[in-house]
Amino acid sequence: MLIAVPLTDREFSQRIREVAEKGADIVELRVDQFQNTEVGFVEDCVRKAKEEGLKVILTVRSPEEGGREVANRRDIFDKVAPLCDFADIELSSREMIIPVRNAVAKNGGKLIVSFHNFELTPPNWILREVLREGHRYGGIPKLAVKANSYEDVSRLLCVGAQEKYEKILIAMGDIGRVSRIAGYAFGSVITYASLGESLAPGQLPLEDVVKLRELFYK
Amino acid sequence: MLIAVPLTDREFSQRIREVAEKGADIVELRVDQFQNTEVGFVEDCVRKAKEEGLKVILTVRSPEEGGREVANRRDIFDKVAPLCDFADIELSSREMIIPVRNAVAKNGGKLIVSFHNFELTPPNWILREVLREGHRYGGIPKLAVKANSYEDVSRLLCVGAQEKYEKILIAMGDIGRVSRIAGYAFGSVITYASLGESLAPGQLPLEDVVKLRELFYK
Repeated sequence: MLIAVPLTDREFSQRIREVAEKGADIVELRVDQFQNTEVGFVEDCVRKAKEEGLKVILTVRSPEEGGREVANRRDIFDKVAPLCDFADIELSSREMIIPVRNAVAKNGGKLIVSFHNFELTPPNWILREVLREGHRYGGIPKLAVKANSYEDVSRLLCVGAQEKYEKILIAMGDIGRVSRIAGYAFGSVITYASLGESLAPGQLPLEDVVKLRELFYK
Repeated sequence: MLIAVPLTDREFSQRIREVAEKGADIVELRVDQFQNTEVGFVEDCVRKAKEEGLKVILTVRSPEEGGREVANRRDIFDKVAPLCDFADIELSSREMIIPVRNAVAKNGGKLIVSFHNFELTPPNWILREVLREGHRYGGIPKLAVKANSYEDVSRLLCVGAQEKYEKILIAMGDIGRVSRIAGYAFGSVITYASLGESLAPGQLPLEDVVKLRELFYK
Protein backbone atom coordinates (compact mmCIF):
# COMPACT_ATOMS: atom_id res chain seq x y z
CA MET A 1 0.00 0.00 0.00
CA LEU A 2 1.48 3.32 -1.07
CA ILE A 3 0.53 6.43 0.87
CA ALA A 4 0.00 9.67 -1.05
CA VAL A 5 -0.45 13.10 0.52
CA PRO A 6 -2.13 15.85 -1.54
CA LEU A 7 -0.45 19.26 -1.22
CA THR A 8 -1.10 22.72 -2.59
CA ASP A 9 1.79 25.16 -2.97
CA ARG A 10 1.14 26.71 0.45
CA GLU A 11 4.27 26.42 2.63
CA PHE A 12 5.45 23.85 0.14
CA SER A 13 9.12 23.47 1.12
CA GLN A 14 8.29 22.91 4.76
CA ARG A 15 5.35 20.61 4.11
CA ILE A 16 7.08 18.42 1.57
CA ARG A 17 9.77 17.71 4.15
CA GLU A 18 7.13 16.83 6.73
CA VAL A 19 5.36 14.50 4.28
CA ALA A 20 8.60 12.60 3.69
CA GLU A 21 9.63 12.51 7.34
CA LYS A 22 6.28 11.16 8.48
CA GLY A 23 6.54 8.18 6.14
CA ALA A 24 4.50 8.92 3.00
CA ASP A 25 5.64 7.49 -0.35
CA ILE A 26 4.03 9.94 -2.72
CA VAL A 27 3.03 13.58 -2.87
CA GLU A 28 0.04 14.52 -5.00
CA LEU A 29 0.52 18.02 -6.41
CA ARG A 30 -2.98 19.48 -6.55
CA VAL A 31 -1.98 22.14 -9.07
CA ASP A 32 -5.59 23.28 -9.46
CA GLN A 33 -5.29 24.54 -5.87
CA PHE A 34 -1.93 26.27 -6.43
CA GLN A 35 -1.64 30.06 -6.20
CA ASN A 36 1.16 29.90 -8.73
CA THR A 37 0.53 27.61 -11.70
CA GLU A 38 3.48 28.64 -13.87
CA VAL A 39 5.16 25.63 -15.40
CA GLY A 40 8.57 26.55 -14.00
CA PHE A 41 7.19 26.80 -10.49
CA VAL A 42 5.37 23.45 -10.70
CA GLU A 43 8.56 21.87 -12.03
CA ASP A 44 10.41 23.23 -9.00
CA CYS A 45 7.85 21.59 -6.73
CA VAL A 46 8.39 18.24 -8.48
CA ARG A 47 12.14 18.65 -8.02
CA LYS A 48 11.80 19.39 -4.31
CA ALA A 49 9.58 16.33 -3.85
CA LYS A 50 12.13 14.12 -5.61
CA GLU A 51 14.90 15.50 -3.40
CA GLU A 52 12.93 14.29 -0.40
CA GLY A 53 12.71 10.83 -1.96
CA LEU A 54 9.02 11.10 -2.77
CA LYS A 55 7.23 9.95 -5.88
CA VAL A 56 4.94 12.53 -7.50
CA ILE A 57 1.36 12.45 -8.79
CA LEU A 58 0.56 15.43 -11.02
CA THR A 59 -3.09 16.42 -10.69
CA VAL A 60 -4.87 19.44 -12.18
CA ARG A 61 -8.40 18.56 -11.13
CA SER A 62 -11.15 19.97 -13.35
CA PRO A 63 -13.89 22.17 -11.86
CA GLU A 64 -16.50 19.51 -12.77
CA GLU A 65 -14.83 17.03 -10.43
CA GLY A 66 -14.07 19.18 -7.43
CA GLY A 67 -11.11 21.16 -8.75
CA ARG A 68 -10.57 24.65 -10.18
CA GLU A 69 -10.16 26.12 -13.66
CA VAL A 70 -6.49 26.42 -14.59
CA ALA A 71 -5.86 28.33 -17.82
CA ASN A 72 -2.61 26.60 -18.75
CA ARG A 73 -3.76 23.11 -17.75
CA ARG A 74 -2.80 21.43 -21.00
CA ASP A 75 0.64 23.05 -20.97
CA ILE A 76 1.29 21.90 -17.39
CA PHE A 77 0.49 18.31 -18.29
CA ASP A 78 2.59 18.44 -21.48
CA LYS A 79 5.68 19.81 -19.75
CA VAL A 80 5.52 18.59 -16.15
CA ALA A 81 3.97 15.12 -16.50
CA PRO A 82 7.18 13.70 -18.09
CA LEU A 83 8.98 14.51 -14.81
CA CYS A 84 6.38 12.71 -12.67
CA ASP A 85 5.73 9.13 -11.61
CA PHE A 86 1.99 9.47 -12.11
CA ALA A 87 -0.36 11.91 -13.84
CA ASP A 88 -4.03 11.93 -12.86
CA ILE A 89 -6.63 12.89 -15.43
CA GLU A 90 -10.42 12.67 -15.05
CA LEU A 91 -12.27 10.20 -17.22
CA SER A 92 -14.62 13.12 -17.95
CA SER A 93 -11.74 15.17 -19.41
CA ARG A 94 -11.99 12.73 -22.29
CA GLU A 95 -9.98 14.68 -24.89
CA MET A 96 -7.05 15.06 -22.48
CA ILE A 97 -6.56 11.41 -21.60
CA ILE A 98 -4.40 10.37 -24.55
CA PRO A 99 -2.18 13.48 -24.45
CA VAL A 100 -1.66 13.12 -20.68
CA ARG A 101 -0.91 9.44 -21.08
CA ASN A 102 1.66 10.20 -23.77
CA ALA A 103 3.27 12.91 -21.65
CA VAL A 104 3.60 10.88 -18.45
CA ALA A 105 4.73 7.78 -20.36
CA LYS A 106 7.77 9.61 -21.78
CA ASN A 107 9.92 8.64 -18.81
CA GLY A 108 7.96 5.59 -17.73
CA GLY A 109 5.39 7.31 -15.52
CA LYS A 110 1.90 5.89 -15.09
CA LEU A 111 -1.49 7.28 -15.98
CA ILE A 112 -4.27 7.50 -13.37
CA VAL A 113 -7.78 7.83 -14.81
CA SER A 114 -10.01 9.22 -12.11
CA PHE A 115 -13.75 9.41 -11.53
CA HIS A 116 -15.41 11.31 -8.67
CA ASN A 117 -18.89 11.42 -7.27
CA PHE A 118 -19.23 13.59 -4.18
CA GLU A 119 -22.92 12.77 -3.68
CA LEU A 120 -23.30 9.01 -3.85
CA THR A 121 -21.93 5.62 -4.84
CA PRO A 122 -23.32 4.74 -8.29
CA PRO A 123 -24.76 1.27 -9.04
CA ASN A 124 -22.31 -1.62 -9.41
CA TRP A 125 -22.47 -1.75 -13.19
CA ILE A 126 -21.36 1.87 -13.42
CA LEU A 127 -18.51 1.33 -10.95
CA ARG A 128 -17.42 -1.65 -13.03
CA GLU A 129 -17.62 0.22 -16.34
CA VAL A 130 -15.62 3.15 -14.98
CA LEU A 131 -12.87 0.82 -13.78
CA ARG A 132 -12.75 -1.01 -17.10
CA GLU A 133 -12.77 2.22 -19.09
CA GLY A 134 -9.76 3.57 -17.19
CA HIS A 135 -8.02 0.24 -17.62
CA ARG A 136 -8.70 0.24 -21.37
CA TYR A 137 -6.87 3.57 -21.59
CA GLY A 138 -3.88 1.79 -20.12
CA GLY A 139 -4.22 3.66 -16.85
CA ILE A 140 -4.81 2.88 -13.19
CA PRO A 141 -8.50 3.63 -12.71
CA LYS A 142 -9.28 5.66 -9.59
CA LEU A 143 -12.81 5.58 -8.18
CA ALA A 144 -13.57 8.14 -5.47
CA VAL A 145 -17.25 8.05 -4.61
CA LYS A 146 -19.26 9.17 -1.60
CA ALA A 147 -20.47 6.38 0.66
CA ASN A 148 -23.83 6.98 2.31
CA SER A 149 -23.99 3.54 3.92
CA TYR A 150 -21.67 0.68 4.75
CA GLU A 151 -23.33 -1.16 1.92
CA ASP A 152 -21.92 1.50 -0.41
CA VAL A 153 -18.46 0.88 1.05
CA SER A 154 -18.68 -2.89 0.59
CA ARG A 155 -20.14 -2.57 -2.92
CA LEU A 156 -17.27 -0.36 -4.05
CA LEU A 157 -14.61 -2.64 -2.57
CA CYS A 158 -16.21 -5.87 -3.82
CA VAL A 159 -16.76 -4.61 -7.37
CA GLY A 160 -13.17 -3.35 -7.31
CA ALA A 161 -11.77 -6.66 -6.07
CA GLN A 162 -13.35 -8.46 -9.01
CA GLU A 163 -11.28 -6.43 -11.49
CA LYS A 164 -7.83 -7.99 -11.63
CA TYR A 165 -5.54 -5.03 -12.33
CA GLU A 166 -4.11 -2.09 -10.37
CA LYS A 167 -6.75 0.37 -9.23
CA ILE A 168 -7.52 2.95 -6.58
CA LEU A 169 -10.74 2.67 -4.56
CA ILE A 170 -11.93 5.37 -2.19
CA ALA A 171 -15.25 5.53 -0.40
CA MET A 172 -15.43 9.21 0.50
CA GLY A 173 -17.03 10.71 3.58
CA ASP A 174 -17.02 9.63 7.21
CA ILE A 175 -18.85 6.39 6.55
CA GLY A 176 -16.29 5.44 3.93
CA ARG A 177 -13.27 6.14 6.10
CA VAL A 178 -12.46 2.45 6.64
CA SER A 179 -11.98 2.01 2.88
CA ARG A 180 -8.84 4.13 3.08
CA ILE A 181 -7.14 1.32 5.00
CA ALA A 182 -9.15 -1.76 3.99
CA GLY A 183 -9.00 -0.92 0.27
CA TYR A 184 -5.54 -2.42 -0.05
CA ALA A 185 -6.89 -5.92 0.67
CA PHE A 186 -9.26 -5.40 -2.28
CA GLY A 187 -6.50 -4.42 -4.69
CA SER A 188 -6.40 -0.65 -4.15
CA VAL A 189 -2.75 0.32 -4.58
CA ILE A 190 -2.64 3.92 -3.32
CA THR A 191 -4.35 5.54 -0.33
CA TYR A 192 -4.57 9.30 0.19
CA ALA A 193 -3.86 10.81 3.59
CA SER A 194 -3.83 14.37 4.86
CA LEU A 195 -1.20 16.60 6.38
CA GLY A 196 -2.98 19.10 8.57
CA GLU A 197 -6.40 20.00 7.16
CA SER A 198 -7.83 17.41 4.78
CA LEU A 199 -8.48 18.22 1.10
CA ALA A 200 -11.11 15.50 0.76
CA PRO A 201 -13.98 14.27 2.96
CA GLY A 202 -13.02 11.32 5.16
CA GLN A 203 -9.27 11.51 4.58
CA LEU A 204 -7.29 10.29 7.57
CA PRO A 205 -4.20 12.02 8.98
CA LEU A 206 -0.91 10.77 7.54
CA GLU A 207 0.36 9.71 10.97
CA ASP A 208 -2.65 7.42 11.47
CA VAL A 209 -2.35 5.86 8.03
CA VAL A 210 1.35 5.13 8.50
CA LYS A 211 0.64 3.41 11.83
CA LEU A 212 -2.29 1.45 10.42
CA ARG A 213 -0.26 0.23 7.45
CA GLU A 214 2.27 -1.06 9.96
CA LEU A 215 -0.47 -2.75 12.01
CA PHE A 216 -2.30 -4.42 9.13
CA TYR A 217 0.06 -4.87 6.24
CA LYS A 218 3.56 -5.51 7.58
CA MET B 1 -19.53 -3.09 16.05
CA LEU B 2 -19.42 -5.03 19.31
CA ILE B 3 -16.05 -5.97 20.74
CA ALA B 4 -15.69 -9.36 22.43
CA VAL B 5 -12.66 -10.50 24.42
CA PRO B 6 -12.09 -14.24 24.92
CA LEU B 7 -11.01 -15.19 28.44
CA THR B 8 -10.05 -18.38 30.21
CA ASP B 9 -10.51 -18.68 33.97
CA ARG B 10 -6.93 -17.59 34.65
CA GLU B 11 -6.89 -14.48 36.90
CA PHE B 12 -10.54 -14.12 35.95
CA SER B 13 -11.69 -11.50 38.48
CA GLN B 14 -8.88 -9.15 37.64
CA ARG B 15 -9.08 -9.65 33.89
CA ILE B 16 -12.82 -9.28 33.61
CA ARG B 17 -12.50 -5.86 35.25
CA GLU B 18 -9.78 -4.88 32.80
CA VAL B 19 -11.88 -6.03 29.84
CA ALA B 20 -14.73 -3.79 30.97
CA GLU B 21 -12.56 -0.80 31.82
CA LYS B 22 -10.80 -0.87 28.46
CA GLY B 23 -14.08 -0.60 26.60
CA ALA B 24 -15.12 -4.09 25.43
CA ASP B 25 -18.82 -4.95 25.20
CA ILE B 26 -18.68 -8.71 25.54
CA VAL B 27 -16.58 -11.39 27.21
CA GLU B 28 -16.34 -14.77 25.52
CA LEU B 29 -15.91 -17.47 28.14
CA ARG B 30 -13.68 -20.07 26.50
CA VAL B 31 -14.75 -22.80 28.92
CA ASP B 32 -12.82 -25.43 26.97
CA GLN B 33 -9.67 -23.61 28.16
CA PHE B 34 -10.83 -23.39 31.82
CA GLN B 35 -8.97 -25.28 34.55
CA ASN B 36 -12.24 -25.54 36.44
CA THR B 37 -15.25 -26.49 34.32
CA GLU B 38 -17.74 -27.12 37.12
CA VAL B 39 -21.12 -25.63 36.32
CA GLY B 40 -21.21 -23.61 39.54
CA PHE B 41 -17.84 -22.06 38.81
CA VAL B 42 -18.74 -21.14 35.22
CA GLU B 43 -21.99 -19.60 36.50
CA ASP B 44 -19.93 -17.49 38.89
CA CYS B 45 -17.85 -16.23 35.98
CA VAL B 46 -20.99 -15.24 34.10
CA ARG B 47 -22.20 -13.38 37.18
CA LYS B 48 -18.93 -11.48 37.55
CA ALA B 49 -19.00 -10.47 33.89
CA LYS B 50 -22.57 -9.17 34.28
CA GLU B 51 -21.56 -7.18 37.33
CA GLU B 52 -18.99 -5.44 35.16
CA GLY B 53 -21.72 -4.58 32.65
CA LEU B 54 -20.47 -7.03 30.04
CA LYS B 55 -22.50 -9.30 27.80
CA VAL B 56 -21.42 -12.95 27.76
CA ILE B 57 -20.75 -15.47 24.99
CA LEU B 58 -20.61 -19.04 26.29
CA THR B 59 -18.19 -21.13 24.24
CA VAL B 60 -17.03 -24.71 24.86
CA ARG B 61 -15.03 -25.18 21.68
CA SER B 62 -14.74 -28.79 20.47
CA PRO B 63 -11.31 -30.34 19.93
CA GLU B 64 -12.04 -30.66 16.18
CA GLU B 65 -12.27 -26.89 15.88
CA GLY B 66 -9.34 -25.75 18.00
CA GLY B 67 -10.76 -26.38 21.48
CA ARG B 68 -10.42 -29.07 24.14
CA GLU B 69 -12.45 -32.04 25.28
CA VAL B 70 -14.72 -31.08 28.19
CA ALA B 71 -16.50 -34.04 29.81
CA ASN B 72 -19.55 -32.12 31.07
CA ARG B 73 -19.93 -29.98 27.92
CA ARG B 74 -23.61 -30.72 27.38
CA ASP B 75 -24.39 -30.00 31.03
CA ILE B 76 -22.58 -26.65 30.90
CA PHE B 77 -24.60 -25.56 27.89
CA ASP B 78 -27.88 -26.76 29.42
CA LYS B 79 -27.37 -24.92 32.69
CA VAL B 80 -25.20 -21.90 31.90
CA ALA B 81 -26.40 -20.89 28.42
CA PRO B 82 -29.76 -19.61 29.81
CA LEU B 83 -27.77 -17.03 31.83
CA CYS B 84 -25.83 -15.81 28.78
CA ASP B 85 -26.47 -13.35 25.95
CA PHE B 86 -24.94 -15.67 23.35
CA ALA B 87 -23.97 -19.34 23.16
CA ASP B 88 -21.53 -20.44 20.48
CA ILE B 89 -21.77 -23.95 19.06
CA GLU B 90 -19.86 -25.37 16.10
CA LEU B 91 -21.79 -26.28 12.99
CA SER B 92 -19.85 -29.55 13.16
CA SER B 93 -21.29 -30.32 16.62
CA ARG B 94 -24.49 -30.97 14.71
CA GLU B 95 -26.41 -32.87 17.41
CA MET B 96 -25.80 -30.09 19.94
CA ILE B 97 -27.12 -27.16 17.91
CA ILE B 98 -30.80 -27.51 18.72
CA PRO B 99 -30.28 -28.19 22.46
CA VAL B 100 -27.88 -25.20 22.75
CA ARG B 101 -30.28 -23.01 20.84
CA ASN B 102 -33.11 -24.01 23.18
CA ALA B 103 -30.99 -23.39 26.26
CA VAL B 104 -29.73 -19.94 25.27
CA ALA B 105 -33.17 -18.89 23.99
CA LYS B 106 -34.74 -19.44 27.42
CA ASN B 107 -34.01 -15.89 28.49
CA GLY B 108 -33.76 -14.33 25.06
CA GLY B 109 -30.11 -15.08 24.33
CA LYS B 110 -28.85 -15.64 20.81
CA LEU B 111 -27.27 -18.65 19.17
CA ILE B 112 -23.94 -18.35 17.33
CA VAL B 113 -23.22 -21.19 14.88
CA SER B 114 -19.50 -21.25 14.22
CA PHE B 115 -17.24 -22.74 11.59
CA HIS B 116 -13.43 -22.73 11.71
CA ASN B 117 -10.73 -23.52 9.24
CA PHE B 118 -7.22 -22.87 10.55
CA GLU B 119 -5.55 -23.82 7.26
CA LEU B 120 -7.29 -21.95 4.48
CA THR B 121 -10.29 -20.03 3.22
CA PRO B 122 -12.65 -22.48 1.46
CA PRO B 123 -14.21 -21.66 -1.93
CA ASN B 124 -16.99 -19.09 -2.04
CA TRP B 125 -19.81 -21.61 -2.38
CA ILE B 126 -18.76 -23.31 0.84
CA LEU B 127 -18.49 -19.99 2.71
CA ARG B 128 -21.97 -19.15 1.48
CA GLU B 129 -23.45 -22.52 2.43
CA VAL B 130 -21.94 -22.34 5.92
CA LEU B 131 -23.44 -18.88 6.47
CA ARG B 132 -26.85 -20.00 5.23
CA GLU B 133 -26.79 -23.18 7.26
CA GLY B 134 -26.11 -21.26 10.48
CA HIS B 135 -28.83 -18.80 9.56
CA ARG B 136 -31.33 -21.61 8.91
CA TYR B 137 -30.73 -22.81 12.47
CA GLY B 138 -31.88 -19.38 13.60
CA GLY B 139 -28.39 -18.44 14.70
CA ILE B 140 -25.76 -15.84 13.87
CA PRO B 141 -23.33 -17.72 11.63
CA LYS B 142 -19.67 -17.18 12.51
CA LEU B 143 -17.03 -17.87 9.88
CA ALA B 144 -13.43 -17.90 11.11
CA VAL B 145 -11.11 -19.04 8.34
CA LYS B 146 -7.41 -18.63 7.69
CA ALA B 147 -6.51 -16.11 5.01
CA ASN B 148 -3.43 -16.96 2.96
CA SER B 149 -3.80 -13.99 0.62
CA TYR B 150 -5.62 -10.68 0.47
CA GLU B 151 -7.85 -12.30 -2.10
CA ASP B 152 -8.97 -14.71 0.65
CA VAL B 153 -9.78 -11.71 2.87
CA SER B 154 -11.82 -9.98 0.19
CA ARG B 155 -13.61 -13.20 -0.82
CA LEU B 156 -14.72 -13.83 2.76
CA LEU B 157 -15.95 -10.27 3.28
CA CYS B 158 -17.68 -10.02 -0.11
CA VAL B 159 -19.46 -13.36 0.20
CA GLY B 160 -20.48 -12.33 3.71
CA ALA B 161 -21.79 -8.93 2.60
CA GLN B 162 -24.12 -10.63 0.12
CA GLU B 163 -25.94 -12.44 2.92
CA LYS B 164 -28.40 -10.00 4.50
CA TYR B 165 -28.57 -11.07 8.12
CA GLU B 166 -26.36 -10.79 11.20
CA LYS B 167 -23.11 -12.70 10.89
CA ILE B 168 -19.54 -12.78 12.14
CA LEU B 169 -16.69 -12.82 9.62
CA ILE B 170 -13.06 -13.35 10.62
CA ALA B 171 -10.11 -13.84 8.31
CA MET B 172 -7.59 -15.44 10.67
CA GLY B 173 -3.84 -15.00 10.58
CA ASP B 174 -1.66 -11.97 10.01
CA ILE B 175 -2.85 -11.41 6.45
CA GLY B 176 -6.44 -11.39 7.63
CA ARG B 177 -5.91 -8.90 10.45
CA VAL B 178 -7.64 -6.04 8.61
CA SER B 179 -10.88 -8.07 8.53
CA ARG B 180 -11.16 -7.64 12.30
CA ILE B 181 -11.86 -3.96 11.76
CA ALA B 182 -13.16 -3.81 8.19
CA GLY B 183 -15.60 -6.68 8.72
CA TYR B 184 -18.17 -4.38 10.29
CA ALA B 185 -18.68 -2.55 6.99
CA PHE B 186 -19.53 -5.94 5.45
CA GLY B 187 -22.13 -6.81 8.08
CA SER B 188 -19.98 -8.54 10.67
CA VAL B 189 -21.53 -7.67 14.03
CA ILE B 190 -18.90 -8.83 16.54
CA THR B 191 -15.11 -8.58 16.45
CA TYR B 192 -12.82 -10.50 18.81
CA ALA B 193 -9.90 -8.76 20.47
CA SER B 194 -7.26 -9.95 22.90
CA LEU B 195 -6.27 -8.96 26.40
CA GLY B 196 -2.60 -9.81 26.80
CA GLU B 197 -1.66 -12.88 24.79
CA SER B 198 -3.99 -13.65 21.93
CA LEU B 199 -6.05 -16.88 21.85
CA ALA B 200 -6.40 -16.81 18.07
CA PRO B 201 -4.02 -16.01 15.20
CA GLY B 202 -4.23 -12.38 14.04
CA GLN B 203 -6.31 -11.09 16.94
CA LEU B 204 -5.58 -7.45 17.72
CA PRO B 205 -5.13 -6.04 21.23
CA LEU B 206 -8.33 -4.71 22.81
CA GLU B 207 -6.87 -1.20 23.17
CA ASP B 208 -6.21 -0.98 19.43
CA VAL B 209 -9.65 -2.25 18.48
CA VAL B 210 -11.37 0.25 20.78
CA LYS B 211 -9.38 3.11 19.22
CA LEU B 212 -10.02 1.91 15.68
CA ARG B 213 -13.75 1.60 16.28
CA GLU B 214 -13.66 5.22 17.39
CA LEU B 215 -11.70 6.24 14.30
CA PHE B 216 -13.78 4.43 11.71
CA TYR B 217 -17.25 3.89 13.06
CA LYS B 218 -18.17 6.80 15.31
